[in-house]
Amino acid sequence: MEIPVIRNILEANSKIGEELRKLFAAHGILALNLISSPGAGKTSLLERTLRDLHAECRMAVIEGDLQTDNDARRVAAAGAKAVQINTEGGCHLDAAMVRSALAHFDLAALDILFIENVGNLVCPVEFDCGEDGKVALLSVPEGDDKAEKYPLLFHLASVLVLNKIDLLPYVDFDITRAVHFATRLNRGLAVFELSCRTGQGLNAWYDWLRTRRAAKKAR
Amino acid sequence: MEIPVIRNILEANSKIGEELRKLFAAHGILALNLISSPGAGKTSLLERTLRDLHAECRMAVIEGDLQTDNDARRVAAAGAKAVQINTEGGCHLDAAMVRSALAHFDLAALDILFIENVGNLVCPVEFDCGEDGKVALLSVPEGDDKAEKYPLLFHLASVLVLNKIDLLPYVDFDITRAVHFATRLNRGLAVFELSCRTGQGLNAWYDWLRTRRAAKKAR
Repeated sequence: MEIPVIRNILEANSKIGEELRKLFAAHGILALNLISSPGAGKTSLLERTLRDLHAECRMAVIEGDLQTDNDARRVAAAGAKAVQINTEGGCHLDAAMVRSALAHFDLAALDILFIENVGNLVCPVEFDCGEDGKVALLSVPEGDDKAEKYPLLFHLASVLVLNKIDLLPYVDFDITRAVHFATRLNRGLAVFELSCRTGQGLNAWYDWLRTRRAAKKAR
Repeated sequence: MEIPVIRNILEANSKIGEELRKLFAAHGILALNLISSPGAGKTSLLERTLRDLHAECRMAVIEGDLQTDNDARRVAAAGAKAVQINTEGGCHLDAAMVRSALAHFDLAALDILFIENVGNLVCPVEFDCGEDGKVALLSVPEGDDKAEKYPLLFHLASVLVLNKIDLLPYVDFDITRAVHFATRLNRGLAVFELSCRTGQGLNAWYDWLRTRRAAKKAR
């Protein structure tokens, strides 16, 4: 009963996603869709990135949340133009929501667009928002089995950010095991082990962003 | 387009949920639906509870996951009868799934049934599985703003378990703020601050279970 409706929704969404991808390509914008459990550190990663790369890169953020504009206020305080989408209970962003948020940005003055999805390891994964790649975040306290238990995100993502590595001494988390589960699903996955709290490991993530941004501009 | 279909699904689900609630009542079974983000500690709480209360209470677990039977094996190792439901990508358990799992249990020989939902703060909340109450888990590393950002769960839950309090010295988490957001949504919420890793605070949760179980038997 439910499945045909969902398939129609996904097909309609993908069409808008393709339209957005062309729009981003036309402007040379690198678009990244950040997906994780609630509290894994998506907003913290953006705060750090916006502060540290603002001199070399024009960035903006679309924030997705069920309620509140807390995250948009956090990234705006870090210096980026931010638009908050409240899904009013909805468990993911879709391409139409992203398209409507784009009206608030000057696309000609943008290098990287971050889409911070609703905190959810399941539902956002199937909704293409026109991004160049999905950035999966996994935080150390969540446990090293998450890629095994929620495989689709890690299968489809371009990047895995293993966040909160400063907490490794205090929890049972085997990085080798976590990375093994994820890269077994996806051999092309770029993996960054870092801590948004201490700053450890952020430079490798920044270098990846610089490379991907330059490649997008060159196309 | 999407909303009427979802309403029909929820109505059909609630009918089965009511049927299950009558079944649990007829057998004097306390049924609890555990809901949290991935990795907040639902399985760890069950492992501890099953080991510590097995002499006084007959317990069983229905495990919901997209993939794997890891959690069912963990709770079975802790001594409980466990049935794994794999949702094959689905983001929540529903009442029909729980009903089909019940065929594997002897309901006459059961005091407490734990339903461990898919790790997701959004989608499982609206699907009544016949439980007496929802147990919301929030772990300290997720941040103290989660009740504000994902309010429905905390509004509907009977219990809030604040897990991983052993990590409080290493993260920015204001317990007063977290509890304030949750109890403002729900004045009747029972709050337990604990650590499944160290065992701190578990006794208050066990006392709550004992009281609720006795009340269910007496009805």
